[in-house]
Amino acid sequence: MTELLSNHLGGRWQAGTGAGTALLDPVLGNELVRVDATGLDLAAGFAFAREQGGAALRALTYRERAAMLGAIVKVLQANRDAYYDIATANSGTVRNDSAVDIDGGIFTLGTYAKMGDALGERRFLLDGEAARLGKEPLFQSQHVLTPTRGVALLINAFNFPGWGLWEKAAPALLSGVPVIVKPATATAWLTQRMVRDVVEAGILPPGALSVVCGSAAGLLDQLQPFDVVSFTGSADTAALIRSHAAVTQRSVRVNIEADSVNSALLLPGEAAGSEAFDLLAREAVREMTVKSGQKCTAIRRIFVPEPLYDAAAEAIGARLRKITVGNPRNDAVRMGALVSRAQLGAVREGLACLRSQADVLHDGATHAPVDADAAVACCVGPTLLGTRDADGADRVHDTEVFGPVATLVPYRDAAHALALVRRGQGSLVASLYGSDSAALAATAVELADSHGRVHVISPEVGQLHTGHGNVMPQSLHGGPGRAGGGEELGGLRALNFYHRRSAVQAGTDVLAHL
Amino acid sequence: MTELLSNHLGGRWQAGTGAGTALLDPVLGNELVRVDATGLDLAAGFAFAREQGGAALRALTYRERAAMLGAIVKVLQANRDAYYDIATANSGTVRNDSAVDIDGGIFTLGTYAKMGDALGERRFLLDGEAARLGKEPLFQSQHVLTPTRGVALLINAFNFPGWGLWEKAAPALLSGVPVIVKPATATAWLTQRMVRDVVEAGILPPGALSVVCGSAAGLLDQLQPFDVVSFTGSADTAALIRSHAAVTQRSVRVNIEADSVNSALLLPGEAAGSEAFDLLAREAVREMTVKSGQKCTAIRRIFVPEPLYDAAAEAIGARLRKITVGNPRNDAVRMGALVSRAQLGAVREGLACLRSQADVLHDGATHAPVDADAAVACCVGPTLLGTRDADGADRVHDTEVFGPVATLVPYRDAAHALALVRRGQGSLVASLYGSDSAALAATAVELADSHGRVHVISPEVGQLHTGHGNVMPQSLHGGPGRAGGGEELGGLRALNFYHRRSAVQAGTDVLAHL
Repeated sequence: MTELLSNHLGGRWQAGTGAGTALLDPVLGNELVRVDATGLDLAAGFAFAREQGGAALRALTYRERAAMLGAIVKVLQANRDAYYDIATANSGTVRNDSAVDIDGGIFTLGTYAKMGDALGERRFLLDGEAARLGKEPLFQSQHVLTPTRGVALLINAFNFPGWGLWEKAAPALLSGVPVIVKPATATAWLTQRMVRDVVEAGILPPGALSVVCGSAAGLLDQLQPFDVVSFTGSADTAALIRSHAAVTQRSVRVNIEADSVNSALLLPGEAAGSEAFDLLAREAVREMTVKSGQKCTAIRRIFVPEPLYDAAAEAIGARLRKITVGNPRNDAVRMGALVSRAQLGAVREGLACLRSQADVLHDGATHAPVDADAAVACCVGPTLLGTRDADGADRVHDTEVFGPVATLVPYRDAAHALALVRRGQGSLVASLYGSDSAALAATAVELADSHGRVHVISPEVGQLHTGHGNVMPQSLHGGPGRAGGGEELGGLRALNFYHRRSAVQAGTDVLAHL
Repeated sequence: MTELLSNHLGGRWQAGTGAGTALLDPVLGNELVRVDATGLDLAAGFAFAREQGGAALRALTYRERAAMLGAIVKVLQANRDAYYDIATANSGTVRNDSAVDIDGGIFTLGTYAKMGDALGERRFLLDGEAARLGKEPLFQSQHVLTPTRGVALLINAFNFPGWGLWEKAAPALLSGVPVIVKPATATAWLTQRMVRDVVEAGILPPGALSVVCGSAAGLLDQLQPFDVVSFTGSADTAALIRSHAAVTQRSVRVNIEADSVNSALLLPGEAAGSEAFDLLAREAVREMTVKSGQKCTAIRRIFVPEPLYDAAAEAIGARLRKITVGNPRNDAVRMGALVSRAQLGAVREGLACLRSQADVLHDGATHAPVDADAAVACCVGPTLLGTRDADGADRVHDTEVFGPVATLVPYRDAAHALALVRRGQGSLVASLYGSDSAALAATAVELADSHGRVHVISPEVGQLHTGHGNVMPQSLHGGPGRAGGGEELGGLRALNFYHRRSAVQAGTDVLAHL
């Protein structure tokens, strides 16, 4: 039997009482560890976090909490090698892809440590300036942001067990709100290990950071009016969370990041082989292949002017042909595995769905897995699809295939392009490629209402932009509509979710004490 | 048969095809008008608002839309007398109470006209400064706020048919988002009349302002991912809205303002008869009696130090004894009627519920209605309840009686007071009374996380503060937990709900065009 990972709840390590669910190596197929949350006293655990953890965190200043984030960074850096080993084994990712998760998480924590330090020795935030409530200046309104007196339940997706933990936990802890994280079971090991290292380092007060691995059953039932829940995952699970009485009846604040059919758009007027054209091809391939396309921000639809359809197919296909797929332990391999058999099945199913309305421009089946047993390994080559029926192929705009798959779509003119992009019904990211600054800015504004982020790649920034799918802590992460309507990160904006806004109306002598 | 009020939808006036629901005079009992929404083509109406109204509004700048709000103010001012007549007849309110609704709405519109003008000739807003995304300053992130490309469905409560319309519609229209308002049936007349006057004045583009009177059936089914819904009313209806597929599956953004058991708290250390003590008594009586206590912000619980319990009961009771209740057309009457027989029944039921755990300190039954038939008029005298069992009387902390009823509750010390106030599980407002500025400020911060607004009344502002229950457009209106978790008003913060935030990541030459 493999090791049964323990849960940290109620300030102590507690093993589940069930047999546990096995976590597997998606390349080799062997069992790695097991997780189980059976028999935990969730009510006591949530109360401990809410009361002990919350009170202790709120007693600290932003600067003190920021210093804790900085100390967590050091602990994680000291244990980086173990995290890379876990990622290779449990996520099947090559080193560069593991870095997106592990070093991306550490970088995000470090960024919040820095921003938090600048907030200084305060325990609540002023929101804007005081406003007069009449002609008489003696009585005014000052908005404040105070940490919510509850817990943050963080329910994460399988693709980012490291970054997903810290991009949510860093703003929560900095805000003074205790965290209970529930990682996706398939890749829970890395999350559990990071939490274990941080808890053992004794950086945070008891109850500030808990982890429950395994089934999510019963977690939402624990939520009280001042708790919050932040979820990343499928639209179906998101709907279940939103329908729960904690949300509908107790007004528990909820943040959702769900499906997203993201776009890359080459603006009109760019020739095949131009700098902008090449930047599009390069970025499309990078997005399709990083983490085998298992990024919620990855490019799923590639829009080019109709006359460039064939050239774009050729340019992207040529780059895809060079991608080696297989065992991440082999240095010749550029792209590792999908995370599980279940995901492999879902990707194959999604591909079949799209292929009913699109042609195969580059077939992933031509990539034989390197150093891996094709019958066992969850490896799949990158596939570029294409359709000349941009308007009719509704599945292309509706279906998120969570793997190395994208579809090339031609458009007639700028208005057509915008209409097609918007058929994603709300996405996390659109990236724009072009050389006309004014047109790029205007297009970015046009797409801003349906995207949490618009990433503009022009030749001047071709080498130094941060990547379509790379989530920077300074920028908002989330998107409206289908993408779930959530807002994460965005610098200090992330703290809003964990704070309550209130207007203090008082005489200026009282406001002077705030 | 009385007049059947028409609905404005799809850019035209449309009568319902049913018999309609009668709106009554709550004092005299006679039928006034009828409303009906049977047979409307809601899908076409919503599409018209979304496409025609939305596009026309978004084509304008904030300054141009602000000028429209200013023009609406003039139309409403020109028709004020008609509104007061409708309020007297349909809401049963005395002139001063009608003013809270009518002039309060006009004032809120005027405030947004002024704030909107200051936003200038722009069509979207910058959100904060651009942030570097690395050491290299050429590539940065600039957050923008753009109007959502959908409709705002505003579902309002019966107690504010005027103000409730405009406090929601002003920020929506200023944001460039078309409005469909569904007033509560019992008092829909004033809302319909105001919309009629504004539509007939031709101020707004077709589709920008619609009104549907009568049943809400089918309205939520129309909502698409970029629409928003803002609701004021009961927690039960709020839960239904939150559970609707538009919200759970299509991520329609929702703002809820629901029940609230608001508090007034006299700080420790104030003597009976002190200025702060008298200010508390005065404000408690004002809040209990304005609009017969039918304000979601009204004081429901009054907290005083234990030794002051009897003195507070006497001071508040003495003021309540002077309140005359009855026909609002009689100048001797200070407090009019409840809005309907249904509300009269609900208030009597709520009173009975509270009386099982509280004593009657001043009995509303001693107020015989003036100039009104007690068997017909929905009049009820103000009742002060009290309990010495602050911790055990759970109904006092849980039950919102939507009428002229409040409960006096003694506390032992400051920590006990805070714990009792928080048993409201999230409220719209708490007001604090005292003379120690530092203690008032510290208490305000302590209560900020469970209240949308903390209103501080110290002797220096005793004459010029804006009132516990009075909602100022400069300050946030809403509250966490039981109060629904919504945020309205708060100056320009109100625009956030109608905008989408997006991070534009681009080279500085592109960002310069924003």
